[in-house]
Amino acid sequence: MPYYIGDVIKDYKRLVIRTPEEFKKTGIDVKIRTRVDGVDPAKGRVFLSDGSSLPYDVLVMATGADAIRLEVPGSDLEGVFVLRNLTDALRLKSFITEKDCRKAVLVGGGYIAMEMCEALRNLGLETTVMVRRTRPVMRWEAEFGKIILEELGKHGVLFLPETKPVAVEKGKGSRLRLITDKGELDADLILMGVGARPNTALAESIGLALGESGAIKVDARQRTSMEGVYAVGDCCEAFHRVSSRWVYMPLGDIANKQGRITGQNIGGYPSEFPGIVGAQCFKVFNLEVGATGLTEEEAEKCGFQPASSMIWGLPVGRPMARGEKLGVKLVADKKTGKLLGGQCIGEKGAVQRINSLSVALFAGMTLDDVSYLDLAYAPPFGGAWDAIHVAAQNLRARI
Amino acid sequence: MPYYIGDVIKDYKRLVIRTPEEFKKTGIDVKIRTRVDGVDPAKGRVFLSDGSSLPYDVLVMATGADAIRLEVPGSDLEGVFVLRNLTDALRLKSFITEKDCRKAVLVGGGYIAMEMCEALRNLGLETTVMVRRTRPVMRWEAEFGKIILEELGKHGVLFLPETKPVAVEKGKGSRLRLITDKGELDADLILMGVGARPNTALAESIGLALGESGAIKVDARQRTSMEGVYAVGDCCEAFHRVSSRWVYMPLGDIANKQGRITGQNIGGYPSEFPGIVGAQCFKVFNLEVGATGLTEEEAEKCGFQPASSMIWGLPVGRPMARGEKLGVKLVADKKTGKLLGGQCIGEKGAVQRINSLSVALFAGMTLDDVSYLDLAYAPPFGGAWDAIHVAAQNLRARI
Repeated sequence: MPYYIGDVIKDYKRLVIRTPEEFKKTGIDVKIRTRVDGVDPAKGRVFLSDGSSLPYDVLVMATGADAIRLEVPGSDLEGVFVLRNLTDALRLKSFITEKDCRKAVLVGGGYIAMEMCEALRNLGLETTVMVRRTRPVMRWEAEFGKIILEELGKHGVLFLPETKPVAVEKGKGSRLRLITDKGELDADLILMGVGARPNTALAESIGLALGESGAIKVDARQRTSMEGVYAVGDCCEAFHRVSSRWVYMPLGDIANKQGRITGQNIGGYPSEFPGIVGAQCFKVFNLEVGATGLTEEEAEKCGFQPASSMIWGLPVGRPMARGEKLGVKLVADKKTGKLLGGQCIGEKGAVQRINSLSVALFAGMTLDDVSYLDLAYAPPFGGAWDAIHVAAQNLRARI
Repeated sequence: MPYYIGDVIKDYKRLVIRTPEEFKKTGIDVKIRTRVDGVDPAKGRVFLSDGSSLPYDVLVMATGADAIRLEVPGSDLEGVFVLRNLTDALRLKSFITEKDCRKAVLVGGGYIAMEMCEALRNLGLETTVMVRRTRPVMRWEAEFGKIILEELGKHGVLFLPETKPVAVEKGKGSRLRLITDKGELDADLILMGVGARPNTALAESIGLALGESGAIKVDARQRTSMEGVYAVGDCCEAFHRVSSRWVYMPLGDIANKQGRITGQNIGGYPSEFPGIVGAQCFKVFNLEVGATGLTEEEAEKCGFQPASSMIWGLPVGRPMARGEKLGVKLVADKKTGKLLGGQCIGEKGAVQRINSLSVALFAGMTLDDVSYLDLAYAPPFGGAWDAIHVAAQNLRARI
């Protein structure tokens, strides 16, 4: 029986999570507020922060990822947050609702920043997004980035491109002052959303091999380099079906799948995780934004000869359109005609298309296949030729 | 150069369709208000209703389907409609807006009836749907049928199950009276939405082979049994990739794809239509309803050993759910574990899932494949385990 050692979670009552007592009834011993200080793989023992130890036959590393915290002076001041786990979220929420927060600055332009914009604006906070580069979520096509910026602007979010934080100080009118290389900003709350790195310290301490990405190396059964030790989730790599490489992509749905595969393997039902295709999405105000597969840059690095094209289609049949747009960008390999990736953006239907394209990538389809996919057609949901058909035909004609 | 012979369309101005003059500029001679009375395939000539004839090298049969009109006394009275083409739609629309229509009866419970319910209720008409069987759109699971009936009821549509039309008479308070085997109904407008049959008269007149379905037999290049004669759209069959059989499924998106394939073949670029998987959907008020692949009955007839299961999931992540439901039914083959079909229903996200499942069917995936598909996850669009993952795992565990 494997042991599960949970992290600290303050208020069970508000959350649909079983208490350790409830878990015990099902035969599972859950220890909370307990850190693992060390592992002795030769003896099969885990050493806990309370001084005790536990024996194991099978060990699962599910140590997750840590949010990257920019090391600038003052980044440890009250009011500077990262958002990685439930505890972070509860702390942030209490802080906003209990303190008098009026101005928020989001450092970074990833999913965390995009999704928090909506949450913070809904709570009535003045919100600023600050990024090092020219636009947020750089994975997406520049033209799509422009649409995202327009959406942020429409909802009163201030955007500062090419700006780096230099230091955080106590403020006067506001709680904090953020010093940047372009000037100073008042803030009651600063959220650092600049990425995550796999938490591999424990794994390294027992000599588990890491992959090129720096996350724990696993095989398709989630086995690490050491017999009897598995790894799952944001601390380990996943196999990318499109690039045929092991990559680091810390996303919750991938972690869930890896956990199930691991459980099946431990339970005596040998199973392989078929891998990922890089499907991802977020919502920012009224905009759906999704991507799957490889970008052109990634494809090129992986030895493909990528070509791409972008079209603007409709998420509904033409007679029903009321100005909505649906942007679809596809990337394919010139040599084989194989689909390599896609990006979609729009008020509706963008994630739907990303999912169809993700299944196509999972199956290794070509642009010719995608051009004639049988998709459910009715005017409220698209045209007789769906935007992804048009996009695939468009790119096919170019290569 | 093939000739295109169009049907009568009254008012170009209101529609985004090129006039024959505009077509002529592009080198295409479009004849409207012209019927083809006969074809002489030996001489390669088409005989037109105006007495003239045209030579051809290649002939494309795109004669479409005719709406089935129930042959009951009075079914030719003014106010009794079918809805098949643009002309039908324009006539119906004029009739509703120009005459004083207050009560509509829809005979039949297919897509036409479901979609017209919404249109008619939006125009303020009392609307009744009358079907021979116990519920509308019988392809869908009984439990899903119940949800559809609830949605009709919520929007004030009266539903009459197990009722057959016997005759139409002139009415008193209303324009018409519909006599049924269960009683009489007043109506200003009766729409017969009881299906369509392929228009094969011309094809049969020159001896083209029909398939078992009664529609024109074609091959993957859309060639008929006669050299130089192609058929496309609602008059011909399509290859069903799941059942590996030729079927009759008169849907607009299929017709478009077949048309493109035919054009490529005629133009000297040999192309094969990869076939369909039976993806279909409609919207009825606030409900999305979709299906793909085979039902259990169809699967059994095709020699599979079907098993099915149904789950209720969520179209969004659990913390964001506000009572929305998403029903997913899957059908798979017990012997091979292959996915054979799916049905979805819900306020949102149902068509999205049908499209992902359709791509999975197109690729010939198993339930194990579907269980671990990499789909784009964010709480506004689903759970970390999507409803289709859960449905596939659920059915997989049963077989």
